[in-house]
Amino acid sequence: MTTALPQNNARFLLAARPVGAPKASDWQYTTQSVEAPADGEVLVEVLYISLDPAMRGWMNEGKSYIPPVALGEVMRALGIGRVVASRHPGFAAGDHVTGLLGVQQYARVAGSGLTRVDPALAPLPRYLGTLGMPGVTAYFGLLDIGRPQAGQTVVVSGAAGAVGGVVGQIAKLKGCRVVGIAGGADKCRYLVDELGFDAAIDYKTQDLKAALREHCPDSIDVFFDNVGGETLDAALSHLARGARVVICGAISQYNNTEPTRGPANYLSLLVNRATMTGLVVGDYLPRWGDAIREMAGWMAQGQLKAREDVVSGLENFPTALLKLFKGENHGKLVLKV
Amino acid sequence: MTTALPQNNARFLLAARPVGAPKASDWQYTTQSVEAPADGEVLVEVLYISLDPAMRGWMNEGKSYIPPVALGEVMRALGIGRVVASRHPGFAAGDHVTGLLGVQQYARVAGSGLTRVDPALAPLPRYLGTLGMPGVTAYFGLLDIGRPQAGQTVVVSGAAGAVGGVVGQIAKLKGCRVVGIAGGADKCRYLVDELGFDAAIDYKTQDLKAALREHCPDSIDVFFDNVGGETLDAALSHLARGARVVICGAISQYNNTEPTRGPANYLSLLVNRATMTGLVVGDYLPRWGDAIREMAGWMAQGQLKAREDVVSGLENFPTALLKLFKGENHGKLVLKV
Repeated sequence: MTTALPQNNARFLLAARPVGAPKASDWQYTTQSVEAPADGEVLVEVLYISLDPAMRGWMNEGKSYIPPVALGEVMRALGIGRVVASRHPGFAAGDHVTGLLGVQQYARVAGSGLTRVDPALAPLPRYLGTLGMPGVTAYFGLLDIGRPQAGQTVVVSGAAGAVGGVVGQIAKLKGCRVVGIAGGADKCRYLVDELGFDAAIDYKTQDLKAALREHCPDSIDVFFDNVGGETLDAALSHLARGARVVICGAISQYNNTEPTRGPANYLSLLVNRATMTGLVVGDYLPRWGDAIREMAGWMAQGQLKAREDVVSGLENFPTALLKLFKGENHGKLVLKV
Repeated sequence: MTTALPQNNARFLLAARPVGAPKASDWQYTTQSVEAPADGEVLVEVLYISLDPAMRGWMNEGKSYIPPVALGEVMRALGIGRVVASRHPGFAAGDHVTGLLGVQQYARVAGSGLTRVDPALAPLPRYLGTLGMPGVTAYFGLLDIGRPQAGQTVVVSGAAGAVGGVVGQIAKLKGCRVVGIAGGADKCRYLVDELGFDAAIDYKTQDLKAALREHCPDSIDVFFDNVGGETLDAALSHLARGARVVICGAISQYNNTEPTRGPANYLSLLVNRATMTGLVVGDYLPRWGDAIREMAGWMAQGQLKAREDVVSGLENFPTALLKLFKGENHGKLVLKV
């Protein structure tokens, strides 16, 4: 099926490697003409772009779990869109797909990197949140690495974020006591009143260590960390014997211009015979579908709630991304193109 | 069996909680008269006292895996001795025993806390080293937590110490490439020439990161850490995917007057899907005998070598203990009473 191609593709290129928080001059907002897909490729109109903390890491030089974005390249991002033209047998114009589409209006990508999604089953942004990378991260990070048992205490930082909210709700489904750490009274109310957390700690106004002692009288069996820094140290100081610490991210450290703050309380791992383990969700690709199916089932039964924070306008990408690092997003942060 | 009791018991009491390295005034060297054992107790003449890095932790106030030594109490230490008088059915005068005997000439202790050893099978100090707590720590820390596989790379810090030397030799027995980190050319030569390590890095003269890159071309699968600080950070910067980091100790940090230096490179756990796990050897009491039997077998076959560093004179305890923190001991450090 062939349709007239759109003319222009507006996009954000990485212009410089940021020092600290990404600033306007680290981006180049340009337009290029749209090219027809080659054999095996698909042209996708990008509808929603996922804004994730991991993107900050992709902007740095050096070895990581995937190569950095090169200077002058379209900024890497997960997204969801509609197929405009396809030369891949698996996709036809009109299909809705998700994959690494980049921060742009139109993505010409290999069909092998795309997954079809059904817009009738869930709102499209949800496939970038609970039914996407953050949800699957929460699912395997908690269940495979955290291994919570009924009656145990699970603490999650960044609890009102895309990953944290899912972690806490799944831990509740597994019969745990769940305490969330988030910034601000609104987020804390949301965690307890809407998502069913047992308690929430506002790190902006409360003493973290004292609050953890208060809300976790039996110490912490599973700490799921999205934040790092002081938050990680406070949790380490209150581990239960045999605790599991899941290192999912460290958003407090990503814009550091000084070296990362290492967890000074790491010897708590020794005292408590505890384990700290890192997680990269890409390792779970073979079991991705299992996680999505189970979470979709919980959603259908009202046991798993999702929330997206949608910012509109591709041109607002640089400022929208910063909301993550300021803790201004509430739920999964998504840019509507 | 009754014999005349000795008159006096010289002993070291903990007089003050040290700030930094323990100094003379942190100890009180006193004599008390020897008391006959009560029912269930045994009076032991202490022959050798084990000097271990863990003792520094026992001198600090606060929660740890065992309560701290109280001020005014005999300093806690593992030891080996000969039974002088027994009111416990399991022991008779003349038996050689090991247990928490304290830094003193005579220990009056519950028989239930003692284990008999055979002086004909190995020199007595060996029961405080490779055939004692450090050996069992090495055995389970490496095999249970590190889980090395043939062909993998194992790096151990404090490699010429009581634990490290055993870790490296067992890793060689399991078919691994083994690299030791130690201080000084003598120790490094010993690791390679005597214990069969593939390489040794002298942290006092070499750039640790560069040397790890050179000697671990396939990165580090198992890092067994006795040192902490810069050493841990250097190893974290060179982990293989799925690596296991065993936190056995952090001797570089025990005398800190500032907070412990946390591993700034801990996000390497995330990038490499690696695990960092703490170890307290007391958890392995039920399997202690299995470890000793297997290691004694390796020793009998010449596959596991042991070395003790014996200092003489109970009165030298305070300065002898400091050798550990200065890295002056070569093999298991033991005080001959």
